Amino acid sequence: MLGTVLRGPRDVRCEEVPEPKIVKPTDAIVRLSATCICGSDLWPFRGLNPITAPMAMGHEYCGVVEEVGSAVKTIRPGQFVVGSFCLSDNTCPHCRFGFQSSCVQREFMTGAQAPLARVPLADGTLVATAELPADDLIPSLLATSDVLGTGWYAADAARVQQGSTVVVVGDGAVGLMGVLAAKQMEAGRIIAMSRHKQRQELALEYGATDIVSERGEEGIARIRTLTNGVGADSVLECVGAKESMTQAIECARPGAMIGYVGVPHGVEFDGQQLFFSQRGLLGGPAPVRRFLPHLMEPVQDRKINPGKVFDLELPLAEVAEGYRAMDERRAIKVLLRV
Amino acid sequence: MLGTVLRGPRDVRCEEVPEPKIVKPTDAIVRLSATCICGSDLWPFRGLNPITAPMAMGHEYCGVVEEVGSAVKTIRPGQFVVGSFCLSDNTCPHCRFGFQSSCVQREFMTGAQAPLARVPLADGTLVATAELPADDLIPSLLATSDVLGTGWYAADAARVQQGSTVVVVGDGAVGLMGVLAAKQMEAGRIIAMSRHKQRQELALEYGATDIVSERGEEGIARIRTLTNGVGADSVLECVGAKESMTQAIECARPGAMIGYVGVPHGVEFDGQQLFFSQRGLLGGPAPVRRFLPHLMEPVQDRKINPGKVFDLELPLAEVAEGYRAMDERRAIKVLLRV
Repeated sequence: MLGTVLRGPRDVRCEEVPEPKIVKPTDAIVRLSATCICGSDLWPFRGLNPITAPMAMGHEYCGVVEEVGSAVKTIRPGQFVVGSFCLSDNTCPHCRFGFQSSCVQREFMTGAQAPLARVPLADGTLVATAELPADDLIPSLLATSDVLGTGWYAADAARVQQGSTVVVVGDGAVGLMGVLAAKQMEAGRIIAMSRHKQRQELALEYGATDIVSERGEEGIARIRTLTNGVGADSVLECVGAKESMTQAIECARPGAMIGYVGVPHGVEFDGQQLFFSQRGLLGGPAPVRRFLPHLMEPVQDRKINPGKVFDLELPLAEVAEGYRAMDERRAIKVLLRV
Repeated sequence: MLGTVLRGPRDVRCEEVPEPKIVKPTDAIVRLSATCICGSDLWPFRGLNPITAPMAMGHEYCGVVEEVGSAVKTIRPGQFVVGSFCLSDNTCPHCRFGFQSSCVQREFMTGAQAPLARVPLADGTLVATAELPADDLIPSLLATSDVLGTGWYAADAARVQQGSTVVVVGDGAVGLMGVLAAKQMEAGRIIAMSRHKQRQELALEYGATDIVSERGEEGIARIRTLTNGVGADSVLECVGAKESMTQAIECARPGAMIGYVGVPHGVEFDGQQLFFSQRGLLGGPAPVRRFLPHLMEPVQDRKINPGKVFDLELPLAEVAEGYRAMDERRAIKVLLRV
């Protein structure tokens, strides 16, 4: 079959790869309805993470189960399923605590930018729908697999509550999903920090009440003004850079939590500064599995439409153009038809 | 009157000082029933914080109001009061959010190791009892002013819940109060890390279910064993050193919160490490005022006895011996009779 392989910096190809097979009795093989490119795929694409061997790309997925291993009990061939980018058994103490992304058997999904994918730990990882979803729901169901679950976790970790004032730093797909999550959690005010017209519009559509286009010191000052000098109750950091983290911390009020979901690059926290400013932190790879059933339901009920973050659709064969479009910020998020 | 003045490293004296007067209309003058020495007083005593001018020491206090300024509305002369070491108006947005230790008018209390003290922002800071308490309750009421409130905040920030497994790092007065707080919050298991026989005994009396006397790597390994390799649901860091913070983080499970209340000295957090380990952090100077009414009540009802952390009582004149006893760890906490 054709699959996506990253062979070196900026060298991503759609090429012939072996079809996935059941390797362990807990595996499932899923025929993907669609797949997509993640902002985090750009780190190795840009050469910022070392590439020592060809990498099978793709970790967001939904589709129909083709085959299951002998130990799989709850997932059956023919079911439509969504899974998290973190594979988990959903039974270990970390899973039961709601942190499936630290599962003792954790693996990270790979090879999902392809028509077929092997999903290890199928029973713990996959969530099946009651029936096959309508085609037009596929993008939104695919979004629950990572970006929506990650934005949701950021809001959950930042303890967004009814009536909260929330700041979202980062206008990528995850930041936009953070806006959606904060809206669903009934935040009173949602301030999206974005300089891009199209992303601002989507943020407003997802529930942002204010847009701040300034960055750095100016952006912080603007948030201070908007919150009467107080700062936000909850901040979602959806980038992972030093500047965006500083911005997140400075936009928060004392006692606020910052939920951070962008993988930190060059970020350090000074203990004494964090102490006296009384800002709280919780982040990490999102335990999407915790939220999946709760997120798939409103998608199927057409109450939320996270799939709108896909503003470019390409056939799998043109995956390289998809990477370039996201790298150059011509697209928020690229959906690949397989 | 006689008061406590720190003139240089290890040079603390009980000497003649002017009696405090009402300076602002929001002040109160309180005749202290007792006062005490705080672990944090040892930082300047040891010369670790610079001393540029003689310092009037003492920030923990309870006693009877002598006089109030013209703008004080709720506090009256003759009332018995307890106040936090952080002075706050209790009306600003930070106070209303429960973070009085970041009050927009915040000041830190000073000069309370003396018979009389001036308390700014009296209405917002002081909490009065319905009647004058019995003498034997004074140590416990005094403890609510800082150490109990601080230990309680550590447990609150670490989100201790019914049935939680809690680790307390630090066996000073605040750590012991963290044990008491976790017990009151109905934690299922409370593991106190302590190497000192007398402190271990007090920890057990306050509700610790396990004592770990090992430190560093060995201590972490012991906690791992005790929690079946999982780590604690909540960790209270009550020291502020680099080693104790590392210990706190390593003893926590993914998704756990670390409530840290020791002022960090030489502590830095690596963003990526914190991210992938999924440990949450919230700390800072405790907003004791938030908890005070709730803490004074069980003390008056004799349901908790935080005053047992005072294992040495001295007259104010012998304050220097009190500092030495705490510095040399001969005493957990010294109560001064004024």
